[in-house]
Amino acid sequence: MSNYPERAAQLMRRIEQLAAISEEAGVVTRTFGTPAFVQGRDLVQQWMQQAGLEVRVDNIGNLRGRLASARPGAKTFVIGSHIDTVVNAGRFDGPLGVLLGLDLLEQLAARRAELPFHLELLAFSDEEGVRFHTTYLGSKVLTGAFEPDLLGRTDAAGISLAEAITTMGGNPTQLAADVLPAVEWQGYFEAHIEQGPVLWEQQVPVAVVTAIAGQRRVELTFRGMAGHAGTVPMTMRQDALAGAAEFVLLAEQFARAHGRSLVATVGKLQVPHAASNVIPGEVVCSLDLRSPDEAELAAAYEQLRQQAEAQATRRGLTLDWQLVQQTAPVSCDVALNAGLREAVAAAGYPVIELVSGAGHDAVPVSQVAPATMLFVRCYRGISHNPLENVEPADLAAALQVAEQFLAGLISAG
Amino acid sequence: MSNYPERAAQLMRRIEQLAAISEEAGVVTRTFGTPAFVQGRDLVQQWMQQAGLEVRVDNIGNLRGRLASARPGAKTFVIGSHIDTVVNAGRFDGPLGVLLGLDLLEQLAARRAELPFHLELLAFSDEEGVRFHTTYLGSKVLTGAFEPDLLGRTDAAGISLAEAITTMGGNPTQLAADVLPAVEWQGYFEAHIEQGPVLWEQQVPVAVVTAIAGQRRVELTFRGMAGHAGTVPMTMRQDALAGAAEFVLLAEQFARAHGRSLVATVGKLQVPHAASNVIPGEVVCSLDLRSPDEAELAAAYEQLRQQAEAQATRRGLTLDWQLVQQTAPVSCDVALNAGLREAVAAAGYPVIELVSGAGHDAVPVSQVAPATMLFVRCYRGISHNPLENVEPADLAAALQVAEQFLAGLISAG
Repeated sequence: MSNYPERAAQLMRRIEQLAAISEEAGVVTRTFGTPAFVQGRDLVQQWMQQAGLEVRVDNIGNLRGRLASARPGAKTFVIGSHIDTVVNAGRFDGPLGVLLGLDLLEQLAARRAELPFHLELLAFSDEEGVRFHTTYLGSKVLTGAFEPDLLGRTDAAGISLAEAITTMGGNPTQLAADVLPAVEWQGYFEAHIEQGPVLWEQQVPVAVVTAIAGQRRVELTFRGMAGHAGTVPMTMRQDALAGAAEFVLLAEQFARAHGRSLVATVGKLQVPHAASNVIPGEVVCSLDLRSPDEAELAAAYEQLRQQAEAQATRRGLTLDWQLVQQTAPVSCDVALNAGLREAVAAAGYPVIELVSGAGHDAVPVSQVAPATMLFVRCYRGISHNPLENVEPADLAAALQVAEQFLAGLISAG
Repeated sequence: MSNYPERAAQLMRRIEQLAAISEEAGVVTRTFGTPAFVQGRDLVQQWMQQAGLEVRVDNIGNLRGRLASARPGAKTFVIGSHIDTVVNAGRFDGPLGVLLGLDLLEQLAARRAELPFHLELLAFSDEEGVRFHTTYLGSKVLTGAFEPDLLGRTDAAGISLAEAITTMGGNPTQLAADVLPAVEWQGYFEAHIEQGPVLWEQQVPVAVVTAIAGQRRVELTFRGMAGHAGTVPMTMRQDALAGAAEFVLLAEQFARAHGRSLVATVGKLQVPHAASNVIPGEVVCSLDLRSPDEAELAAAYEQLRQQAEAQATRRGLTLDWQLVQQTAPVSCDVALNAGLREAVAAAGYPVIELVSGAGHDAVPVSQVAPATMLFVRCYRGISHNPLENVEPADLAAALQVAEQFLAGLISAG
């Protein structure tokens, strides 16, 4: 154990080596099932084998390395994250959690630690969902939440998910065989970069994740009356863009007033048939609303909808409000979180608790098992971007905290 | 004279007949120099000849019908508007002014009126500027303001303006020969639909135009920091769209506070690389600012720029403010306007004075001659749209007022 700076340096080297494997030279892109994805997974597989794990690839392409407990009826504690990436990704989103887990199991394997539960390291094959516009393919198969309908979904080249699985050597009809049933789960731990700026701003290397926000996604269409920018007096306008602008600020102020648990974002805004000398007659925009508290989320959604409609009406605009997506919030496990907080404190860091605004493999896992996550500080909160970066000292801190946490679980049996 | 309803009916028939000539069946599109344009012009030329005018087509394709004065050294009073259109246009924008003028000259020619000045009816060949992204090609040639550099400009098919002129039978090197020198102008009158809703709302058929607004067009780029919509707390965002939204409302409120002379419009707004789950890092939008008063326009421009920059700075955004176009306001001639007001009052209508927020051929003409315009009510202020419409009764009112106005000029000598 210990010697974290040296282990962090090795972890960083592995992250770099994996990042060098990409669909496109010069950037990091490894989407589900591509040759680059398989090549990257093969590299991680070698490392798992060298670490002494029992390794296999399941039908959805998850790479699974196991360190077995000798105890009869032992359950399985899973440590994992994903090794697929977005297009033009950073190096840490996903691989950090997998390769940090690899280090932990490598240490345990090297000293032939006795385990009260099996440990399984999961390199999930698809979390980002870029290729098939899905989410969590890998962890949904592991948890039994995979919907077979998805097998017919096709990528941009017209290849179905079933074909992609077959091409990788999997059997799309045998996905159910890879499920780890709920009764066999001991728990789940995932380390991941924060993908937000809180730790960066607070200058703390790690945080305990208490929940993963639920989400409502809305498409709004404001309709007024297009007109000539020079000839329609200000008082006679029904300007759809002014109405949408008012909504952008409403959403911002509403979320600010709610404190840190609620976030609201208008990310897209389009003016169809726009011209600089035409008063906009129609505007389409998005709303992304997130909160870790389902009641708060539902109430905020309804209040925002009512206020937006009142605003639009005052301007003589019509508003079409369409809910296009929703996911429920997820709470991390109270007992696991307590252990994680203790480990952070024991390592000498302030205990910061964060809500994850982004989704993670921990979301489907939390439906079947106690789950927790450790966030690691990343440079300015930047993610899904080549600028994504983590300092080696923070990798060392994350290794120390995670190892302490896992040691606590092992000693508790 | 008089019998305005019957003459208005004939004017409407001519407007309909001209509108039936189009580049595309079912809609009204006659852009400069196209076969449909030439066919439409030929029709108007026939009417001018039947009315007894001396007719010629000049090198830029303007159709010019003359009723000469016998007086030695007589100047020329021009009545005109344009016969080109935007794509999918209305029927009245341009042709109304030309064909109303035709009616007036037809009446004078029929009764062999003695004129103290030559009367010339101009059907300008290009006011909308659709084909070559220009403005006022026809009236700029007539007034000597044409810039020969434009001859090399090409349309979407790669045809140069010089080639287009040659194809129509003009000589692009002889445009200067068509100039009516400033010393020879008696004045200019243009009737045109309002293209705005004021007359419609006030239920009055015509208005005297006192000025044509000047314009500043600005491109604004707000830059902040893109970020994940779920992971960046509201208080740590640098949301470029929220900044742009604040500007949209600032421009609106600023113009409203200034009263009716100033209008401000954000017509275009784009979020590059937009996604519903990404905080916008950059937004590009337009500002169109108009006023008939150059001092007001300049002051408003500067105040808006300063307030926009202060707003952006408060949000931690940078603002790039680029002036991309400006035109100076034009005042209509005081004496001509007095005559037009008298004619409106004599016809029994309330005298409404309007500023034109849109540009017209009167803009270049006003640089060389006293000019005035009469606005005619159009349905709901709608223009540049197939819904553009004028009631026959309003055409009759416009005929009556214009004839009275012209009679006043003729009798004054």
